[in-house]
Formats: sequence, C-alpha cells, structure tokens
Amino acid sequence: MKLVIAMIQDQDANKLLGILSEHGYSATKLASTGGFLRQGNTTLLIGVEDQRVHELMELIKETSKSRKQLVTPLASVGRSLNNYMTEPVEVTVGGATVFVVAVEDFAKV
Amino acid sequence: MKLVIAMIQDQDANKLLGILSEHGYSATKLASTGGFLRQGNTTLLIGVEDQRVHELMELIKETSKSRKQLVTPLASVGRSLNNYMTEPVEVTVGGATVFVVAVEDFAKV
Amino acid sequence: MKLVIAMIQDQDANKLLGILSEHGYSATKLASTGGFLRQGNTTLLIGVEDQRVHELMELIKETSKSRKQLVTPLASVGRSLNNYMTEPVEVTVGGATVFVVAVEDFAKV
Ligand code: NI
Ligand code: NI
Ligand code: NI
Repeated sequence: MKLVIAMIQDQDANKLLGILSEHGYSATKLASTGGFLRQGNTTLLIGVEDQRVHELMELIKETSKSRKQLVTPLASVGRSLNNYMTEPVEVTVGGATVFVVAVEDFAKV
Repeated sequence: MKLVIAMIQDQDANKLLGILSEHGYSATKLASTGGFLRQGNTTLLIGVEDQRVHELMELIKETSKSRKQLVTPLASVGRSLNNYMTEPVEVTVGGATVFVVAVEDFAKV
Repeated sequence: MKLVIAMIQDQDANKLLGILSEHGYSATKLASTGGFLRQGNTTLLIGVEDQRVHELMELIKETSKSRKQLVTPLASVGRSLNNYMTEPVEVTVGGATVFVVAVEDFAKV
C-alpha cells in the first residue's frame, strides 16, 4: 500500500474529490496554504493499493495540472468602455505536486 | 522510528489525545475533513519508536473504532408526544484509518 | 527524493518560510495544533532532493530551535509600580520536531 500526498489548487479540489470518489478512492482533505505567496491550496492524503497508484496519479494530473486560461478583466470603474476596451488575458491556473510514500502497516477499524 | 498518520472522527479526538498523552506519546493535530461527505475529522501525526508501534495502534483502535450507538431523536416540533413517540435509533459513530510510514531521519531541537 | 515534515512554533513560521524560499525550497503549510496544550504550531511539508536534506535540516534547526528569551511581565493591574517592580523572566520559545520520509515517486504538473 502507498500513501499519496497531493498538493493541488483550491479551485480544483472539489472536482478532483468527486472524480476520486467515482473511482473508489477515499481522500482526506487538509487545510493548507502554498509556499510563498500562492494562497489557498489543498493537501490530500489518499491511501491506495500498489497496483492502483498509476491510475490515481493519472487522475490527479488530468484534473489538476497547470494550464492556461483566458480571463477577461473588468473595465476600470469610472472609465467609459468606449475609451477603454478590455481584452482577454491568458493566466496560468491549477498545478499539482504529488508525493508517493510507502506504507508499512495499515489499519481501518 | 515510524510516523503514524491517523484519521479519526472529531468526536473521538480529545479522548484519544488524552490517552496518548498519558502513555507518553506526542501528537500533532491537523485540521481535516473526511473524504466525500464525512465532515469534521481530525488527522494526527505521531512519531513513535519501532517497539511501541503495536501499542500505539491498539490505543488508537480501542478509542476510535467504528461502533454502534443508540440515539433518541427529538420529537418533531408541533407534534404532540402522545401522537408521536420517539424511539432510540442505532447509529454508527467513530472509525479510524491509520497509516504507518518509515522515518529515515528524525530531529528534535 | 525525501519528504521533510517539520512541526515548528507559529512565531517562527514566517521567518523560516522566508529563509526556505531564499534557498530555493518550496513548502506547504498545514494548520495544526501541538499535542497537549501547546497551541498554535505549524506543520510544513517540504519535498527535497537527497543531497539537500542536510542543508534543509540545518536551516530548520537554526531558525526554529528551542531557546531562552527574556520577557518583562506587565505589572499587575491596580498595584503601584513603586510597590511591585517587574523584572525580566526567562521563557523558552521555539522548538522543532522534524521527520524525514523516503519518497518513492514524485510528480509536478
Ligand atoms: Ni475514469
Ligand atoms: Ni494504558
Ligand atoms: Ni544561507
């Protein structure tokens, strides 16, 4: 058995927890903050049988990986939209860091 | 040395922390929520010498294991107790998931 | 690769996080409470290459170790300072407990 420790962004947490549940994984969610400026991430602890580690890693990567997203900024307050057109900008969202650790003993009671 | 990671229900946390303290264990308590609907559990991190892992596992199991409990529901508001007698119902409380991980190096300063 | 799990006192957390960042380490901060009365500590999870574990341990120890500090208590309310002179008292602050665990697999996406 392995213990998978996954740090993901808050915005991806509910979607990933739903996908993990559908695939039969049980996760514990810890409140965490990312290192150095990156606020509001989530750390998940997931116990998993050895033969399912690969599948679990794939599910985490697909759901939580860093990707580009187009965001349209709001026009500044007090400026006319005629004078100040906003255009979508590309931002990076998501991202996951995952550690796999060997479990020597396990109990569920 | 081992690191024991125990997920237990909130309602069992104070009792278990007291019992661990009496037996000389030092535990760090992390705020956590259980996977998928089960709200309000507690994750404990406990460093322990190899020869005491068995005792520690027994203490966690005895204190935190899943068990049946009789609960008497409150009568519905606005109904007379003459018409609507409540009877105790059996609910499941507690439960623990425990992982034991090898520690390669340890320091206390 | 190793996963370093460090429990430190809240008062040392920001300084240590700054020093870790300067030295190129990325840390995840978990909200935690110390075992048994010691309130308000912080648990850090830090992934680190094998050859840097020693340096990381030294940084944690230097920044967070238990040490004496002189604190001047406030005079009791309602007593004259003429009658009740306060003198600095020595208190113990800080302290760290650190576990190093082997990482079998690692991904950052
Ligand atoms: Ni699927
Ligand atoms: Ni006993
Ligand atoms: Ni330096």
